[in-house]
Amino acid sequence: MSGLFTLGESMGIFVADGIGPLGNARGFTLGVAGAESNVAIGVARLGGDATWLGRVGPDATGAIIAARLRASGVRVLAVPDEAHTGLMIRYQRSSQFIQADYHRAGSAGSRLVPADVPRAEIAAAGIVHVTGITPALSDTCRAAVFHAVEEARAAGVPVSVDVNYRGKLWSRFDAAPVLRDLVSRADVVFAGPEEAALFIDTDDPVDGLAKLGPAEVVVKDGARGCAALIHGRRYEVPALPVRAVDTVGAGDAFVAGYLADRLAGEDPGQRLRTAIAAGAFAVTVPGDCEGLPDRSELAALGGGDIVR
Amino acid sequence: MSGLFTLGESMGIFVADGIGPLGNARGFTLGVAGAESNVAIGVARLGGDATWLGRVGPDATGAIIAARLRASGVRVLAVPDEAHTGLMIRYQRSSQFIQADYHRAGSAGSRLVPADVPRAEIAAAGIVHVTGITPALSDTCRAAVFHAVEEARAAGVPVSVDVNYRGKLWSRFDAAPVLRDLVSRADVVFAGPEEAALFIDTDDPVDGLAKLGPAEVVVKDGARGCAALIHGRRYEVPALPVRAVDTVGAGDAFVAGYLADRLAGEDPGQRLRTAIAAGAFAVTVPGDCEGLPDRSELAALGGGDIVR
Amino acid sequence: MSGLFTLGESMGIFVADGIGPLGNARGFTLGVAGAESNVAIGVARLGGDATWLGRVGPDATGAIIAARLRASGVRVLAVPDEAHTGLMIRYQRSSQFIQADYHRAGSAGSRLVPADVPRAEIAAAGIVHVTGITPALSDTCRAAVFHAVEEARAAGVPVSVDVNYRGKLWSRFDAAPVLRDLVSRADVVFAGPEEAALFIDTDDPVDGLAKLGPAEVVVKDGARGCAALIHGRRYEVPALPVRAVDTVGAGDAFVAGYLADRLAGEDPGQRLRTAIAAGAFAVTVPGDCEGLPDRSELAALGGGDIVR
Amino acid sequence: MSGLFTLGESMGIFVADGIGPLGNARGFTLGVAGAESNVAIGVARLGGDATWLGRVGPDATGAIIAARLRASGVRVLAVPDEAHTGLMIRYQRSSQFIQADYHRAGSAGSRLVPADVPRAEIAAAGIVHVTGITPALSDTCRAAVFHAVEEARAAGVPVSVDVNYRGKLWSRFDAAPVLRDLVSRADVVFAGPEEAALFIDTDDPVDGLAKLGPAEVVVKDGARGCAALIHGRRYEVPALPVRAVDTVGAGDAFVAGYLADRLAGEDPGQRLRTAIAAGAFAVTVPGDCEGLPDRSELAALGGGDIVR
Amino acid sequence: MSGLFTLGESMGIFVADGIGPLGNARGFTLGVAGAESNVAIGVARLGGDATWLGRVGPDATGAIIAARLRASGVRVLAVPDEAHTGLMIRYQRSSQFIQADYHRAGSAGSRLVPADVPRAEIAAAGIVHVTGITPALSDTCRAAVFHAVEEARAAGVPVSVDVNYRGKLWSRFDAAPVLRDLVSRADVVFAGPEEAALFIDTDDPVDGLAKLGPAEVVVKDGARGCAALIHGRRYEVPALPVRAVDTVGAGDAFVAGYLADRLAGEDPGQRLRTAIAAGAFAVTVPGDCEGLPDRSELAALGGGDIVR
Amino acid sequence: MSGLFTLGESMGIFVADGIGPLGNARGFTLGVAGAESNVAIGVARLGGDATWLGRVGPDATGAIIAARLRASGVRVLAVPDEAHTGLMIRYQRSSQFIQADYHRAGSAGSRLVPADVPRAEIAAAGIVHVTGITPALSDTCRAAVFHAVEEARAAGVPVSVDVNYRGKLWSRFDAAPVLRDLVSRADVVFAGPEEAALFIDTDDPVDGLAKLGPAEVVVKDGARGCAALIHGRRYEVPALPVRAVDTVGAGDAFVAGYLADRLAGEDPGQRLRTAIAAGAFAVTVPGDCEGLPDRSELAALGGGDIVR
Repeated sequence: MSGLFTLGESMGIFVADGIGPLGNARGFTLGVAGAESNVAIGVARLGGDATWLGRVGPDATGAIIAARLRASGVRVLAVPDEAHTGLMIRYQRSSQFIQADYHRAGSAGSRLVPADVPRAEIAAAGIVHVTGITPALSDTCRAAVFHAVEEARAAGVPVSVDVNYRGKLWSRFDAAPVLRDLVSRADVVFAGPEEAALFIDTDDPVDGLAKLGPAEVVVKDGARGCAALIHGRRYEVPALPVRAVDTVGAGDAFVAGYLADRLAGEDPGQRLRTAIAAGAFAVTVPGDCEGLPDRSELAALGGGDIVR
Repeated sequence: MSGLFTLGESMGIFVADGIGPLGNARGFTLGVAGAESNVAIGVARLGGDATWLGRVGPDATGAIIAARLRASGVRVLAVPDEAHTGLMIRYQRSSQFIQADYHRAGSAGSRLVPADVPRAEIAAAGIVHVTGITPALSDTCRAAVFHAVEEARAAGVPVSVDVNYRGKLWSRFDAAPVLRDLVSRADVVFAGPEEAALFIDTDDPVDGLAKLGPAEVVVKDGARGCAALIHGRRYEVPALPVRAVDTVGAGDAFVAGYLADRLAGEDPGQRLRTAIAAGAFAVTVPGDCEGLPDRSELAALGGGDIVR
Repeated sequence: MSGLFTLGESMGIFVADGIGPLGNARGFTLGVAGAESNVAIGVARLGGDATWLGRVGPDATGAIIAARLRASGVRVLAVPDEAHTGLMIRYQRSSQFIQADYHRAGSAGSRLVPADVPRAEIAAAGIVHVTGITPALSDTCRAAVFHAVEEARAAGVPVSVDVNYRGKLWSRFDAAPVLRDLVSRADVVFAGPEEAALFIDTDDPVDGLAKLGPAEVVVKDGARGCAALIHGRRYEVPALPVRAVDTVGAGDAFVAGYLADRLAGEDPGQRLRTAIAAGAFAVTVPGDCEGLPDRSELAALGGGDIVR
Repeated sequence: MSGLFTLGESMGIFVADGIGPLGNARGFTLGVAGAESNVAIGVARLGGDATWLGRVGPDATGAIIAARLRASGVRVLAVPDEAHTGLMIRYQRSSQFIQADYHRAGSAGSRLVPADVPRAEIAAAGIVHVTGITPALSDTCRAAVFHAVEEARAAGVPVSVDVNYRGKLWSRFDAAPVLRDLVSRADVVFAGPEEAALFIDTDDPVDGLAKLGPAEVVVKDGARGCAALIHGRRYEVPALPVRAVDTVGAGDAFVAGYLADRLAGEDPGQRLRTAIAAGAFAVTVPGDCEGLPDRSELAALGGGDIVR
Repeated sequence: MSGLFTLGESMGIFVADGIGPLGNARGFTLGVAGAESNVAIGVARLGGDATWLGRVGPDATGAIIAARLRASGVRVLAVPDEAHTGLMIRYQRSSQFIQADYHRAGSAGSRLVPADVPRAEIAAAGIVHVTGITPALSDTCRAAVFHAVEEARAAGVPVSVDVNYRGKLWSRFDAAPVLRDLVSRADVVFAGPEEAALFIDTDDPVDGLAKLGPAEVVVKDGARGCAALIHGRRYEVPALPVRAVDTVGAGDAFVAGYLADRLAGEDPGQRLRTAIAAGAFAVTVPGDCEGLPDRSELAALGGGDIVR
Repeated sequence: MSGLFTLGESMGIFVADGIGPLGNARGFTLGVAGAESNVAIGVARLGGDATWLGRVGPDATGAIIAARLRASGVRVLAVPDEAHTGLMIRYQRSSQFIQADYHRAGSAGSRLVPADVPRAEIAAAGIVHVTGITPALSDTCRAAVFHAVEEARAAGVPVSVDVNYRGKLWSRFDAAPVLRDLVSRADVVFAGPEEAALFIDTDDPVDGLAKLGPAEVVVKDGARGCAALIHGRRYEVPALPVRAVDTVGAGDAFVAGYLADRLAGEDPGQRLRTAIAAGAFAVTVPGDCEGLPDRSELAALGGGDIVR
């Protein structure tokens, strides 16, 4: 198999209906949240192969994570753990603020260890994708991520990193050297401008990230589109104008769009157009992964133009 | 103040709508679960004063626990903690099985320590009530419970213990000596026959528990009613025939009924009748604490007779 | 037109979802409640003509009452009034208790006056049906009911009375002479045994009611079926065994069944069998009027046997 | 106690889900509505003490009003009344029109009398707040409001008045002299420009209101911000740009913000900034009182600048 | 009777809650969809008489169609058919795309035949209205529509046609001659510019349609308003600025507005203003027919100006 | 692969919430219905391999059918068809009657043809399972089913038939010879006593079916358990006492239990016990396939005893 291989923590997420204080919510839905599994689903919806590895607890939430990923066409390597599966609660306090509470400390997903990473799967992958979230979860998670990266490099498999700095999980001070180290080992890197500024000094995040080593640097900047330096050539793609209803998951859709097209052998310009379109589609749909589009939905949205 | 003082862990609980696999649930409600806070609410609904002490996390769930208890008339001593508030998920897999998943390991509530227990509150209480759940949560919780019990004894305040053995939290082997020790320090003890059998040898749980020291022993036996030995006199009260829809929380309602009447100066026979009626009412209402009755609702149900 | 003519108050009714305290209800539905309009709907569903007269307020609830009755095939004579439409709130406190709060004092429906009653409609009706609820609402309502009855008698149109004593509206002392007077003017009377006992002295409610004058007396006794004395012949019809889920509206369904068959020219035995079946069907469906059956639904249920 | 004391009518309010005709609504929620109780909740959420006085009926709605206010931290003086608690129904007919039906005539809340007003509570208050709604409900309500105002003045407690003209309750002709009289007795007055125009002649509502006597005049003008004349100094604070979803309750939030800061000893500029921010937050949340913010939520929104 | 007579297919429509993939929808509502029945409801809500003719299946959906139309004040001529009633499923895939699936092939509604058309009803109508949808459903439907049109012409009853081209039902190639033929027999025609371009050659759709014969041509152009040529005089009415939430059903509301006013004897300018206002109101309400306004709702919206 | 291979029609099914007339349903859920796909899901949940073949339409419902089966672990061979996917509507009219409307005539699923059946898949299967529903859908469906059966026989793969007579699809007269023919070609046959009586003459359905040829005959008789004749030995297994809430899907669960154990190499007694337990579990859960248990859920239920 030559598709995407990714690893990380996926959690159950309770999302409150409506807008208002959490205590007034009339009801909740239970979904699955996880940046890496979102990317895996996104790649699968766009027609690529995708495998996700992670630990899940002995509870129904763990089973739901595996089932929902499989339903979306993702191959699941779920390592059973005796700790409970992590949970999140998300509610919209007002039309302007979304709040998220983590209930994930000590969770099954945070107990991933290097030995969980299957060498053969890594070696057979078309690309290995990790994020900067997993190293923040625990020492063993950090070791597992770097182990997977090194296994990929040893096998000649390209490594993709989405920086994804999470201030609720660790301080900027703790995160910066780890994220810098991770990026320096990557072939493909995705970051927002503020994330990049955590560990690079130049004003231009594209250049700064590229100097750390990755041959493909993509800086996502939300409604301003993206800038990239791919094998020495610069690209800029503006955002598509859409009626945004929920920005959650847009970054993962963007990454999935780029990587799906990369796996499919598309050129960099096309990858970026697909990334922009996938991210644009995602913000027109509420939810973490409900907005990940398939190819026909992307086509309906239109494609975006490279302006340089 | 001369009411009930209790301490323990209260959690957010997501309860799935309908019957079926968790993954098929259309929606959830968020409630508050905790044996000790249920008893506090139950006493307040029956007109008594009640105070609950516990740790809550810096998340909206922690705030909801405090708000809902206050709304029910309970005085709340919420100790803020940096760990997240514990969660539970409950769903009805079939008409015959209710499943509950704990997501509480390492929670704020499990980080209670003896220093959290306010000596003056204990000394001023009319009764101090604890359960066998809290000692199972952590070493510091166990120490806090025993500390509260000893403070009460030192102040001449009667101690009430509901044995409440939870097999998901600790083994019978680990639990038995702790629960026996706890009961031996109590003035009032509530247990089911199977719970009592964990740490007493006689066939008669009432006698066995009484030999450990408590002057008031009440053995709750669900649909068979209850048996008691109170200051040397035996009582038996049959269950009230009701259309049961949800047995969750019935034990807590029973305890609340007994203790509310004890605080109100009722004689033992009346306490037991109220306990039986409160437990009966609770099983006619879905939910943990929605079935805790007020006095007018108890009156509507009828009272039950002492048959011996 | 030769169908049913009835008059009374219909209200908006908010019914809480689920079981528990009103304050915990997750949601409500808005329906239409009214004993007389229920009977009118029931007759229409069974294929008869039915007309309902009442006052409604200048609010959306008033419009809904008219629309829902028309949707059920009832001809509506809605007298507009400047007072607001009456409301009810109903919730199920436990599996055993249903609570209903009236918010109807001073409502539009209670301001019906004799002049609202159209003489020509009365004279052209096949039967005029009233209940003992309306006289309890106000002095003008009482006058309107007796006026309608006298207009019917003057025109040779038979009068049907459902005693329907409501303790929340007036005392037994106030109600007894009014209900007795009303029954004494009726050709057809429906009552429960307790209702009859309000104003008759004999042990046998059938005989007692018959002595007041009505040629057709039907005593409904819930799960025990009914007894009747119709033009001098006694009937007893046992109840049909059904899986009851909601007894609200069963009495109105019973009356509708009897009167629909009476209008259709069926003999007394058949009227009673239809009444029993309609009442039986009604208790298998939640809601006030959702359980009123059509002829095919009655047929599916089976018919019931006259045992004497 | 030196907090807010207010009095008035609170009602149960059924709010329809979604947008469309009332008859098509799939469901409703039951909340609590009342301008004065909203202000009391708002002050409590912002950390102040608040007491609400009103009559409630012997129904579950009355109990819910008391419970919800207590849950929000408001001290409740509920005078029991035999009349039913008033109700409202609110639905959104289209994206542009919200409709509200009052079902409150003759309600418990409208039966407040001067003797209900506790002199000692008034005398101990930090401020007494009334609105122009209550005098429109009944003669006794009007008397009670003026009685409370005079008791406060006699005790040297400042009086706050929110003009709150309600065209559904009384005509402009009837209202004008009463509202003018009420304002003339106030120390603090809140009004919209159209409300002020009911009973003052000048073009400038701030000046016009100030001439009636109040030392603190605040004119709220929705999306245009507010203007004030406070102890002789003029202030203007622009509105904060927010994504408005529901303007109901914004005026009450504004008043609560001003009064909470006044009770906390803040200077007039800060009171107005808090008022503007609280009103702005309220319009970003659906519901009457769900949008009343706490201090941390206000901080997240930002503060607003005094431009003069 | 001198009102609107229309005929066509009405279907049950399941509309998914929320936004996202159909498979993620939490719930659905069941409504009634059909361009002709929408127009009939619209005319009835505006105070006109309206009759709808169509075939319905022997299922509950067929009964619901008849009941809902009757509830809206439409006279229903439902021809029973042994085939099942057609269904539609509608869901909003994103904030920008609404998807509709037809499950209507072979449905009862598509089996309408000329013999179903009652000559006397046609002859007594004030106007006969058909759409270009029905001829696409089946050969017999096409024949029935043209039969109704010819019966109307023979009886001197004006004929109204809404072109309503549906690409999911037939190709432009198949549709063009049929729609052109239908329009050429009409007195009143409604079309969008793109629809008109299917079968006319001129750049100006108003002129092009008028050349085919109709004395009243109205070209609806959504947010740009409408243009018309009525008995030789041109009109243009701009759209009303509204907060659009759902454009489904707006065209039917427009047609209903025009025809209701035509039946009421209003002049062309007023008809068009009412049409524009009814269409504007419809887009402010979700759903097919929930947005059809009554006169008071139209008045609240305002009227629109004729600019030429 | 050596698992179950089955083929048939799966439909989208809209299930109404609550109890009452379809027109009063507040909401619906969209599920997947199909006897053969239920059996495939059931086998997969019990740990077996299962493949389902069928035609689906070009609509979202078709995609949902494939996705939900895959999510349940079933391998899906979905043949795309241009006709729409079939639909069902199910509602509970009362506590005693469930109604189902088919909207499936001419559906994609009914257009299955023999050429759709993949010879290699059949030959590699462990068992081929068909039902008596599919032959009733269309001539091509009937041909496809018999073609699959003959292919299996030719390849030495055992054939399983569930008689599943559906009176809504064909008459007893039409069905009898086809079902008899189908059974005579089977190795394993499942039927209810009434179904068997359609085409056998003896009083004993087990004997009668066995005489037609199948070496394994299982007669399911609901609450009375089952009787079987398997390779010449008779078995009887009583039903398990459970709290039934929904009998839909119980027969499919029974068949899945038997076939899963057969594929797993269990002896006949064990297969029947598993079948009984799976059917028992299914009736304790609402829905078509939500009640299909996994092995741990079966174990929780208990096993049942062979009494002969």
